[in-house]
Amino acid sequence: MTRSVQIVDVTLRDGLQNESVIPTTAAKVDLARRLVDAGARRIEAVSFVHPRAVPAMADAEAVMAAVGGPPGVRYSGLVLNERGLDRALAARVDEVNVVVCASDTFSRRNQNMSTAESSAIASTIVRRAGDAGVPATVTVATAFGCPFEGEVAEDAVLDIVRAAVAAGAAEVALADTIGVAVPAQVASLGRKVRELADGRALRFHFHDTRNTGIANAWIAIEVGADALDASSGGIGGCPFAPAATGNVATEDLVYLLDRSGVEHGLDLEGVVDAGRRAVGLIGREPTSSLALAGGFPSPRA
Amino acid sequence: MTRSVQIVDVTLRDGLQNESVIPTTAAKVDLARRLVDAGARRIEAVSFVHPRAVPAMADAEAVMAAVGGPPGVRYSGLVLNERGLDRALAARVDEVNVVVCASDTFSRRNQNMSTAESSAIASTIVRRAGDAGVPATVTVATAFGCPFEGEVAEDAVLDIVRAAVAAGAAEVALADTIGVAVPAQVASLGRKVRELADGRALRFHFHDTRNTGIANAWIAIEVGADALDASSGGIGGCPFAPAATGNVATEDLVYLLDRSGVEHGLDLEGVVDAGRRAVGLIGREPTSSLALAGGFPSPRA
Repeated sequence: MTRSVQIVDVTLRDGLQNESVIPTTAAKVDLARRLVDAGARRIEAVSFVHPRAVPAMADAEAVMAAVGGPPGVRYSGLVLNERGLDRALAARVDEVNVVVCASDTFSRRNQNMSTAESSAIASTIVRRAGDAGVPATVTVATAFGCPFEGEVAEDAVLDIVRAAVAAGAAEVALADTIGVAVPAQVASLGRKVRELADGRALRFHFHDTRNTGIANAWIAIEVGADALDASSGGIGGCPFAPAATGNVATEDLVYLLDRSGVEHGLDLEGVVDAGRRAVGLIGREPTSSLALAGGFPSPRA
Repeated sequence: MTRSVQIVDVTLRDGLQNESVIPTTAAKVDLARRLVDAGARRIEAVSFVHPRAVPAMADAEAVMAAVGGPPGVRYSGLVLNERGLDRALAARVDEVNVVVCASDTFSRRNQNMSTAESSAIASTIVRRAGDAGVPATVTVATAFGCPFEGEVAEDAVLDIVRAAVAAGAAEVALADTIGVAVPAQVASLGRKVRELADGRALRFHFHDTRNTGIANAWIAIEVGADALDASSGGIGGCPFAPAATGNVATEDLVYLLDRSGVEHGLDLEGVVDAGRRAVGLIGREPTSSLALAGGFPSPRA
């Protein structure tokens, strides 16, 4: 079992991308600084998509220009096509994250192309990023279920992983985009992908929409995950379940890892504070379990 | 791995015992009927404790007299001492649940006696219940952590289990009373208790206070749990974390089990409805993940 795992903080990207309240660039940069102070070393800060599609990411270049350091902190940008990659490279990201949806229907609705077309473009992006010296992650979205198609076949996921590995992806990520995965599914798919990944890093992205996010994270660690995505305060909902909670909250994940003896490098108190800041930026109240309950042990006698 | 598990619905007991809004006896009985309609076959309905200590349980006898059937449904009553057992037997419970706190400090504050004294009384209760033909569960409370003492030694738990088994308990339960357990802990302690339990049924009681409830439930199943407690709507907070969520919500557990192929006998839709009713009874809004997000698959194309 993995005894250490990287946490990739996706607050600034997945946490904010669907919110109607859009923080200023300065507020985003301030939050990035707080995350770094809390120990974050991988931050998915921006998405290089069309500002009409995702207005909250319109200042991607400005955010990347303003964040930085200390040494050892890596900032990632999400891209969906070559135009996005051009912007990401110009903005000097430390890594890129390319998304391919395993569900063909979701891919057409989200990216206006088939899964096969998207996977081919991802391979091009991985190669071009590699030529520029920038490591690329290929994230398989809707890897555990699709709001339109229902169950997603494991083979659809594995085909994307195979192409990503062949193209030279540094990392492969499995994303439970709509928060439907359960641990048995994570174990089954995770083991197959780890085998295919052939030494590449294995990353998971879980949403806590149906209360399985922490269970899935734990099983992912048992399967050998190298990295787990999380968002401070658990922000980042899913448009298909508007009332539900979003990404796994970084602070909840940190609690799990701390008490399980799995190293990760973040500080619980700092992460809870960053989470409060994050939810405040979008005009909400804290709802993560750790923000409400506090850590343990904290003897009160 | 267990491919089927019993769900013990504790809404009426643990869910209500600390609430300031106390439903009428008729409302409790109506909720019990809804739970049975949703498939519940084990219901912890009451607690035979002093009404000054737990006013919400003052109508225990009246509830037991009114609930009933259909055949195959078992109603349980919680007891802490012989006076409670007398009442439980007179009220014709189908099973009793005796609680012993593994933390000595918690035991003294909660039951006004040491863990050793409480364990001895539990053995007497188990024997007397057995003589009356009523199976007894011994629940080890604060088995995974104490708000006063912090970490709880596994040996403190195992001593209680040993005494319970020697006395003839039909079932041993491990309770995460304040919601601090993590899966690695559940696996470690669960395996040791299963070995000691020597064929007796193994049951777990998790709170979702720090978002680990579902993860713990899953690992408990992997360890061979025969039964899991849950409360409709996730009601039943912990006085030591007043803002936090309470018991694992039955509907969240049912989602996990349904999608994992673990049989349990409950109907998700019926359980979500019962949960809405339960939170309504205490004047709250639904907060369980399944009440907010809905099940899956439910294709929307």
